[in-house]
Amino acid sequence: MAESEQLLLLDLLASPFSARVKIALAEKGLNYESRIEDLANKSPLLLEMNPVHKQIPVFIHNGRPICESTVIVQYIDEVWNHNSPLLPSDPHQRAHARFWADYVDKKIYSIASVLFTSEGEAKEASRKDLIECFKILECEIGEKPYFGGESFGFVDLILIPFYSFFYAFETFGNLSMVEDFPKIMDWAQRCLQKESVSKTLVDQQKLYEIVLELRKKWGVE
Amino acid sequence: MAESEQLLLLDLLASPFSARVKIALAEKGLNYESRIEDLANKSPLLLEMNPVHKQIPVFIHNGRPICESTVIVQYIDEVWNHNSPLLPSDPHQRAHARFWADYVDKKIYSIASVLFTSEGEAKEASRKDLIECFKILECEIGEKPYFGGESFGFVDLILIPFYSFFYAFETFGNLSMVEDFPKIMDWAQRCLQKESVSKTLVDQQKLYEIVLELRKKWGVE
Repeated sequence: MAESEQLLLLDLLASPFSARVKIALAEKGLNYESRIEDLANKSPLLLEMNPVHKQIPVFIHNGRPICESTVIVQYIDEVWNHNSPLLPSDPHQRAHARFWADYVDKKIYSIASVLFTSEGEAKEASRKDLIECFKILECEIGEKPYFGGESFGFVDLILIPFYSFFYAFETFGNLSMVEDFPKIMDWAQRCLQKESVSKTLVDQQKLYEIVLELRKKWGVE
Repeated sequence: MAESEQLLLLDLLASPFSARVKIALAEKGLNYESRIEDLANKSPLLLEMNPVHKQIPVFIHNGRPICESTVIVQYIDEVWNHNSPLLPSDPHQRAHARFWADYVDKKIYSIASVLFTSEGEAKEASRKDLIECFKILECEIGEKPYFGGESFGFVDLILIPFYSFFYAFETFGNLSMVEDFPKIMDWAQRCLQKESVSKTLVDQQKLYEIVLELRKKWGVE
């Protein structure tokens, strides 16, 4: 990396979206500055750099912002393309990876948001959605070590930050990840052997406690 | 294009997502077969080729499926990369284009779905969301001829199919696209000068009638 490169991440410790960017940066061996945002009091820099969504993560490369985690990860992969490629080079395999990243993006966080903050029918519906979603992912990973095949790549990186949610999924969803989705659990353990992942992910118990606090704040018991 | 290339699109006439793929194929000068799906009676081929979402469009290239319109368009741009590039070659500009395509993808269709099928507070909230969304797009296009600058590209292609929705937006949203969003209207007229766009888009009145039919079917008057 050129000495003049300035890499700044507007960050949040427990965000799975921020974790994606941190894993990508670690995979590429890049040093960067992380600034933790206070979402209750967003910094002027965050509002300036992401005026549309006003959300983290924002990756600022030599003063120019890139927003939205999947966009940032693709950017990092394209700029630092000489080591640890995340997306495959074959166009069909790239499309396949983008399809699954999009599937994870559309499903897991929105399902989790309902599961963690609702009761009754809405909670039960989101529990079923979560199970359906992981069944599909279990089927897709199959006997492969990683989603893209033999090496850790784009889809793994997009999905693995939700490993921090697994204990909360089990508790609020009344399910057992290891019994219900053994292949996903094997895959997750494989990902966790990578330092880029294990050093980035938030502890499941800590994430669960954050969810409990949010439920109290929102009056859900 | 090699004689042996087989390009098949599982299609729906009024779908803005299908329109994106058709515009991309037209921009690249590719011939393809279109098979119109009946969503009330989906073909075995659709269910086989897109088992996860079971939705159109599906682009089948030499027997291999690619699903989700933004993924398909990027695939087409990568495979047939020698003419009419859709995404810019500079990584930062690519990230910028992907950010705006993602913004359009997250916002417009979901807002339209509520606006077209609700009444009262939900309708009013979706009307405000739509206005906010187009204000942001109006600001982003600014004085540029196209979203990416001087030539028609990825973001234009992702957004322009919603031009078919404009009359329905005006009617159900009680707004005037030309008065409220003049730069977006100028941009749309510019896009419509391209044969790839004008030959693909569904007439606004026809789209409006489809919405009316759906409202009747769903008991919204």
